[in-house]
Amino acid sequence: MRAEILSIGTELLLGHISDTNATYLARQLTTLGIDLFYVSQVGDNLGRLTETLRRARDRSDLVIMTGGLGPTEDDLSREAIAAVLGETPAVDPQLEAELRAFFASRGIEMPERNVKQAWVIPSVTPLANPVGTAPGWWAERDGKIVVAMPGVPHEMMRMWEHEALPRLRPRTGTVLFTRTLRVAGMGESTVEERLGELIHGENPTLATYAKRDAVDVRVTAKATTAAAAEALVAQMEARAREALGAHVFGVDAQTPQSVALALLIARGLTLAAMESCTGGLLASLITDVPGSSAAFLGGFVAYSIAMKAAYGVPRETLEQHGAISVETARAMARAARERLGADVGVGITGVAGPAEQEGKPAGTVHIAVASTAERVSETSQRFRGARSEIKWRAAITALNLLRLHVLREERDA
Amino acid sequence: MRAEILSIGTELLLGHISDTNATYLARQLTTLGIDLFYVSQVGDNLGRLTETLRRARDRSDLVIMTGGLGPTEDDLSREAIAAVLGETPAVDPQLEAELRAFFASRGIEMPERNVKQAWVIPSVTPLANPVGTAPGWWAERDGKIVVAMPGVPHEMMRMWEHEALPRLRPRTGTVLFTRTLRVAGMGESTVEERLGELIHGENPTLATYAKRDAVDVRVTAKATTAAAAEALVAQMEARAREALGAHVFGVDAQTPQSVALALLIARGLTLAAMESCTGGLLASLITDVPGSSAAFLGGFVAYSIAMKAAYGVPRETLEQHGAISVETARAMARAARERLGADVGVGITGVAGPAEQEGKPAGTVHIAVASTAERVSETSQRFRGARSEIKWRAAITALNLLRLHVLREERDA
Repeated sequence: MRAEILSIGTELLLGHISDTNATYLARQLTTLGIDLFYVSQVGDNLGRLTETLRRARDRSDLVIMTGGLGPTEDDLSREAIAAVLGETPAVDPQLEAELRAFFASRGIEMPERNVKQAWVIPSVTPLANPVGTAPGWWAERDGKIVVAMPGVPHEMMRMWEHEALPRLRPRTGTVLFTRTLRVAGMGESTVEERLGELIHGENPTLATYAKRDAVDVRVTAKATTAAAAEALVAQMEARAREALGAHVFGVDAQTPQSVALALLIARGLTLAAMESCTGGLLASLITDVPGSSAAFLGGFVAYSIAMKAAYGVPRETLEQHGAISVETARAMARAARERLGADVGVGITGVAGPAEQEGKPAGTVHIAVASTAERVSETSQRFRGARSEIKWRAAITALNLLRLHVLREERDA
Repeated sequence: MRAEILSIGTELLLGHISDTNATYLARQLTTLGIDLFYVSQVGDNLGRLTETLRRARDRSDLVIMTGGLGPTEDDLSREAIAAVLGETPAVDPQLEAELRAFFASRGIEMPERNVKQAWVIPSVTPLANPVGTAPGWWAERDGKIVVAMPGVPHEMMRMWEHEALPRLRPRTGTVLFTRTLRVAGMGESTVEERLGELIHGENPTLATYAKRDAVDVRVTAKATTAAAAEALVAQMEARAREALGAHVFGVDAQTPQSVALALLIARGLTLAAMESCTGGLLASLITDVPGSSAAFLGGFVAYSIAMKAAYGVPRETLEQHGAISVETARAMARAARERLGADVGVGITGVAGPAEQEGKPAGTVHIAVASTAERVSETSQRFRGARSEIKWRAAITALNLLRLHVLREERDA
């Protein structure tokens, strides 16, 4: 099967955004064993879009379009597909009802222009988009497929995974199985070093990706059956886990926060936090997890020294060691725990930057996790990067320390 | 001048790398006022490359190629240009001498395959590449220009800046100026409706983009001088602002949080927050802004009802109206303010989902901003989407309410 990608949007041609969708889809097609011969970016212009789509459909079996499905006059993907196939769009009553329900649930009347998002043509099967207003189009005729998906990356990726991929997979002869190991507390090059020769395998393949919240090790195997591909991945996973030890905190969609919370909930433990330099980011990450209220009682964003002192950090600690100290982090963890009557407390203090503070450089961060006044885990780090990057790395490090602390408590018990 | 970009390399089509060169060049062309109509990625295949280049040269005045200038058999940009122009490559003695000197300076003998990097054709002026082995090609004939540059980004950017740009600039008569208006409290289609006819202008052009923290309205004008382009933008900006009113909260790189904080700091006001459903996200966004400690004293993530009650929400309020109520939001705003001695307090309570709470559906959010016990602004909303989306929209809405509250307080004073 020969494929081609069309990325639509004048903002691409103005250089306002990069075409990350094409890179994602290219990688997906590679793992499906589908040949990708061309990627084209075209602006919001009906003539150029139609011409490009016609050529793509002439020379390829599968054309994947992203963008141009919005409600405005500049969104022309539907018009272009209809023109190339010579079919006339009409409003699909069910899609329209869903669209109106979407707006009604937000208490807004649907602008009339949005009706075009409910269009279909005879060759089209609509693809569901529960996270946005634009359904996708699966247009199949004469042995050729055109798939149109939204340009917003998270909407596109969801639609690809849940709608397009399941329709494409049966048409390719191979089955692919992938598992991602999520690694904390090591940089990408250290992970690669530890994996050593494993990284050069052909099937399964092993690839590392540095993500904001972890280093991912993706294990991918091809086989003729799902069971065979899964077995190949399982063997390789065991070897990778041996090389990486307790640094592997989870797999696939698990996050540092979901894993830490699951540990706490499984053990019936409650959690409280007091943050300074992360400014609420730790609490926000924790509360991103559905059901987090089962363990997380609450937190304090003790951004000023006055608030630290008023909410439980002893004046002597602040005076002797400063607000940016492991002693203050420890006192914050204890105070959070005691004030909210939680089993475990986390404290974070540091310098988010850009300016230094108390003579400590930007990126200095102290983190403590306390179960009782005595049972405390702590770490001091110096992170690099912009302010938001330092906040992020501090919060992720705290979640990893929390995980290791709970595991150790259990081992010691 | 109409331009087109060709990015060459099979690694792009496998998704191994992203086409950051195209984004860079697109932005450069935009600021030169050169229209970019197409970007194409093609693999290392002479037939497909020649076909794509021929079409590009037919329909555009300027074709910018990156990649395919290496010494291997897979590097085919020179061959494709020669084929399209019908000219025959020959080794340029001066380029060959420079190439041999480059290798000699590193103490390596030049592999013979590298000789092709010294090729030229009659229409070509070579472009110097002091940071790599591949010179670029400036191929000009019949009023059409083809520029071929290396694919390695830093080599390409240097060559663009020092070799291609100085040759192009005198040929463009135009200068471009852009300003982005950032809009809060309205969806993208409402913004478009309000802008009405303005959206159809040719110069300046006006385009809307839905971002996570705002709807952006980008105003772009072309003129022969920077001052003239800026004046055109200023006129259009005034009309757009009239249509959008106080919904325009900032321009360009400003964010809801940077604008709200700047307002507070300019008036010498301090801020405190008490959050429930946003779980610390509001505080985290605020503390993303460098210098936020000048206004932000701290916050409470009152995730449990017990913590709400212990930190200032009256029991009667919780019992009579429930934790998910505008009364509780108001009490939280007041409590945050009073506990930390801040001038302004923000309170947020709601249902982040996915499950309903107190019989209220996911997405229900109540927000209050209080300056004194009496001077309170509040809003109740129902947001759609996943948990993190609801948190995000609640926090952004709170920042907008905070901004409007401070502006109103000032007007009323």
